[in-house]
Amino acid sequence: MRQAGRSLPEYRALRGDGDILDAIRHPEMAAEATLQPVRRYGVDAAILFSDIMVPVAAVGFGVTVRPGVGPVTDTPFREATDLDRLRPLEPPVDMPWVAEAVRLVVAELAGRAGREVPLIAFAGGPFTLASYLIEGQPSRDHPLTKRLMYSEPELWRELLQRLANLVIASLCDQVQAGAGALQVFDSWIGALSPRDYEAYVLPASRYIFEATAHLGVPRIHFGVGTGELLGLMAAAGADVIGVDWRVPLNIAAERVSGHGVTALQGNLDPVVCLAPWGTVEREARLVLAEATADLGHVFSLGHGVLPQTDPGILARLVELVHEETARV
Amino acid sequence: MRQAGRSLPEYRALRGDGDILDAIRHPEMAAEATLQPVRRYGVDAAILFSDIMVPVAAVGFGVTVRPGVGPVTDTPFREATDLDRLRPLEPPVDMPWVAEAVRLVVAELAGRAGREVPLIAFAGGPFTLASYLIEGQPSRDHPLTKRLMYSEPELWRELLQRLANLVIASLCDQVQAGAGALQVFDSWIGALSPRDYEAYVLPASRYIFEATAHLGVPRIHFGVGTGELLGLMAAAGADVIGVDWRVPLNIAAERVSGHGVTALQGNLDPVVCLAPWGTVEREARLVLAEATADLGHVFSLGHGVLPQTDPGILARLVELVHEETARV
Repeated sequence: MRQAGRSLPEYRALRGDGDILDAIRHPEMAAEATLQPVRRYGVDAAILFSDIMVPVAAVGFGVTVRPGVGPVTDTPFREATDLDRLRPLEPPVDMPWVAEAVRLVVAELAGRAGREVPLIAFAGGPFTLASYLIEGQPSRDHPLTKRLMYSEPELWRELLQRLANLVIASLCDQVQAGAGALQVFDSWIGALSPRDYEAYVLPASRYIFEATAHLGVPRIHFGVGTGELLGLMAAAGADVIGVDWRVPLNIAAERVSGHGVTALQGNLDPVVCLAPWGTVEREARLVLAEATADLGHVFSLGHGVLPQTDPGILARLVELVHEETARV
Repeated sequence: MRQAGRSLPEYRALRGDGDILDAIRHPEMAAEATLQPVRRYGVDAAILFSDIMVPVAAVGFGVTVRPGVGPVTDTPFREATDLDRLRPLEPPVDMPWVAEAVRLVVAELAGRAGREVPLIAFAGGPFTLASYLIEGQPSRDHPLTKRLMYSEPELWRELLQRLANLVIASLCDQVQAGAGALQVFDSWIGALSPRDYEAYVLPASRYIFEATAHLGVPRIHFGVGTGELLGLMAAAGADVIGVDWRVPLNIAAERVSGHGVTALQGNLDPVVCLAPWGTVEREARLVLAEATADLGHVFSLGHGVLPQTDPGILARLVELVHEETARV
């Protein structure tokens, strides 16, 4: 459950309200924020406390994550000369605190009693990163991003290639430091038609999954509103496809078939977790029932946990899923 | 092309920057804003200059449309007593300016040379209206709306029933005043899973289309991000389903089949219209090529026109579609 920490009082006490890019420069703090939901909820995997802008910021592009707003940049990406602001990432020099946080988390997880809990490495996807750099702020319609994509396809390809290289370097760094899986969050690709995703984004996505295959860990690919893109996302080469709540898992299973995907991840609507427990239980059971026998299923929410979620509800949800899946 | 006026300097001069709910109380102004895109672009249908909150405001619920923000209410819908704020609509008493604007538009359209241009009546859909009333403002996640939907299904049903009655009264009024088609904009239903749409919204949608069948005009049903809902929207009984740019028209055609749908409407990405003409032309031709022979096709954008769109591009787009479809 990504962003599960946001619902926890102990997280809010730890975190304060500054820029997350500053906060995660403190490995002990990042490790603690990563571990809090594991302790509180007993989930089966941890995901590194991070932000998709970390590698971009680490090479000095000039970006901040404004609390309550999201990633913003005073000098957005506009033209070919801006490519120089995206030099190759050297994780040990540019962001040593990330690997350090990973090592701290993995050490603590290894020392826990009970079943093994892997840490999932965290990175953004190329379209979503490009949108923040080009728009200079979060955007519903991504107008400047798509304009550049359509009007300057060569520059667009070069931008996505550079972003993909940052993503790959960051993921390899996290896995080499001990992460046992990785996830690429290309959250906003659902703004694209399948035709545009295939032409303008799929090559960079495929490159990321090809370049991380040698790591030998399960690789998860996720976006929101991706109903029509699931087959293309599967073709990009991930092992697991994350599905939001809009697509029933049995339908998602059909759409990803034939590409070597081994499991689906999802897909309870995070908003359901604001309802009384009876509703959460009913909806969670429906999600479990929609998972098919052909594919593995990693139960999770269809998007990040909403901050106003009651931690007690999430704890009961994890318990329910453990009970139900132990029975299988 | 809905909201095509927003791109026009003559619209901005006419409209100023107040609440649209005040502006449309002036029938001459609303008629003029409706006709401007027809004159400038030569489109084949006009859509009434209106707002989905008109009937709700007309019965005194207490809502304003804040420029640059959207519909807001100081006293959101919270409990059963709030139903009293949604009494039945009497169009001739509560919003006589709407029918008057329709009559002015229809008279002017009838006097034009060339092919007949029908006016499309305008109304919101029940989920989208409910969300604005319950959230009190535009919302990405619709948390309070879904919480009420899940937790108080009886109250939810009653709310949607009342909203559906407002929609029906408004649409009947507009068609009786001369509109030659109608469109229900349930813009945000794409936030729902198919299971939830079917359980919580479809009954009200079906009720609206049943209650407007006797009007004898084509009825269009539209929402954004509705890939998984197209079959259910078709089952609700519309003649035409509006499709956003995320679903290729040939796939949409499969999903709506078997429910008596006669045409699809869509689905060029409005953001494409910010690109140079070469891109717009290429993408528009691809949309035309994806339309199937089995179903009629009403070419339009997949969502409203973006305000920063160049009117010259839209004029060329209309010309292109006219040339291409004349050839068929």
